[in-house]
Amino acid sequence: MATLHHHPLCPHSRFIRLALGEMGSDAQLTEVRAWERRPEFLALNPAGATPVLVDEQDFVVPGPGPICEYLDETRGLALGRNRLLPDDVAGRVEVRRLLDWFNGKFFDEVSSYLVTEKIYKRFMAADLGGGPPDMNTIRAARTNVRYHLRYIGFLLGRRHCLAGETLTYADLAAAAHLSCVDYLGDVPWSEDEAAKAWYARVKSRPSFRPLLQDTVPGMAPAAIYADLDF
Amino acid sequence: MATLHHHPLCPHSRFIRLALGEMGSDAQLTEVRAWERRPEFLALNPAGATPVLVDEQDFVVPGPGPICEYLDETRGLALGRNRLLPDDVAGRVEVRRLLDWFNGKFFDEVSSYLVTEKIYKRFMAADLGGGPPDMNTIRAARTNVRYHLRYIGFLLGRRHCLAGETLTYADLAAAAHLSCVDYLGDVPWSEDEAAKAWYARVKSRPSFRPLLQDTVPGMAPAAIYADLDF
Repeated sequence: MATLHHHPLCPHSRFIRLALGEMGSDAQLTEVRAWERRPEFLALNPAGATPVLVDEQDFVVPGPGPICEYLDETRGLALGRNRLLPDDVAGRVEVRRLLDWFNGKFFDEVSSYLVTEKIYKRFMAADLGGGPPDMNTIRAARTNVRYHLRYIGFLLGRRHCLAGETLTYADLAAAAHLSCVDYLGDVPWSEDEAAKAWYARVKSRPSFRPLLQDTVPGMAPAAIYADLDF
Repeated sequence: MATLHHHPLCPHSRFIRLALGEMGSDAQLTEVRAWERRPEFLALNPAGATPVLVDEQDFVVPGPGPICEYLDETRGLALGRNRLLPDDVAGRVEVRRLLDWFNGKFFDEVSSYLVTEKIYKRFMAADLGGGPPDMNTIRAARTNVRYHLRYIGFLLGRRHCLAGETLTYADLAAAAHLSCVDYLGDVPWSEDEAAKAWYARVKSRPSFRPLLQDTVPGMAPAAIYADLDF
């Protein structure tokens, strides 16, 4: 069985867990605290970040982008109409554009701030940056998430899913990042009804169930986190 | 003819210019000052960043990752043995891992700092963040570039090129980012002889020539910038 080195609240790890779930692929989960920079983890990924997929043949694939391209190249065609990276060139460009948007921009402006300040810093040693959350950073993330929700709503005004009419990696990445923010109670769902309805759809998929059962010691999820009718 | 919306000192734009050059594809260059956030540019790329490729059929592809995948999917097979994204799964994973390394990590730790502080801020209005460079940021970038050079040297201890035995996107991305830092005179080439020899090889390729002719008003390149025997 494959192994996914992840952290329960790492949004990039959650994206890959959703992708594996949609593909019906099982993977054993190994929790990593990337900030500890353990040599055995750096040997798997010199960049020192989660997720890292180690396949059945011990083949190592680090990072959300390389992993999702790898999964598509090795398992995508077998999914037929449920393939998560479309067959057509224009569809592929749009999915990859939105993967950059959520795994890059949303991460840099929202999910990394919130997960680092509220979760990771609880577990980090003081000399590695641990300590109480910085409220200015949290406020910036809470402001930024609003325009991202409106952008999701804008896309859904023209399409059933984020990159087109069918579910793709773009939906999984966006939902993965939002799920971390939602765990922390920081998604203002009233900002955009279309974004909320889309998230409720993705959240109801079987692939999402394991994420809704995640908990971090000492930090219970927000009340609506696992509620499918939030 | 295709159009590439770029900035002469944007490392991600330079990566795509090198890729187009290696493929023998001409593109008309249109300079963009992304920080001005002009509506006509945001319509091409809502993320507001260079590069954006507009193909012969007016098809829009934004961002270095989506563009290089698009170029490979539409023109890669025709390159045969000179294909810049290898045919084999392991080779593709390694190239994409290193693309993340240079377009993500190196950009965040080195090239974005230096280009923003030394170039972009000269041309930005004060209310958009313009002004004199922040020396602490520049010092951080100058420290970080050293370990990246050593990492390049480490890779070259095992291989002829960064991702394997042949030239790939990984070499072009790494060289593109380094070329911006080199323009500014901030690459300590004595740090790693193997990295320096590899850069001299890439810099001598015909695809590199247009980059060596770039100049930014009021900021001449470092003396060794265009020298092939630096």
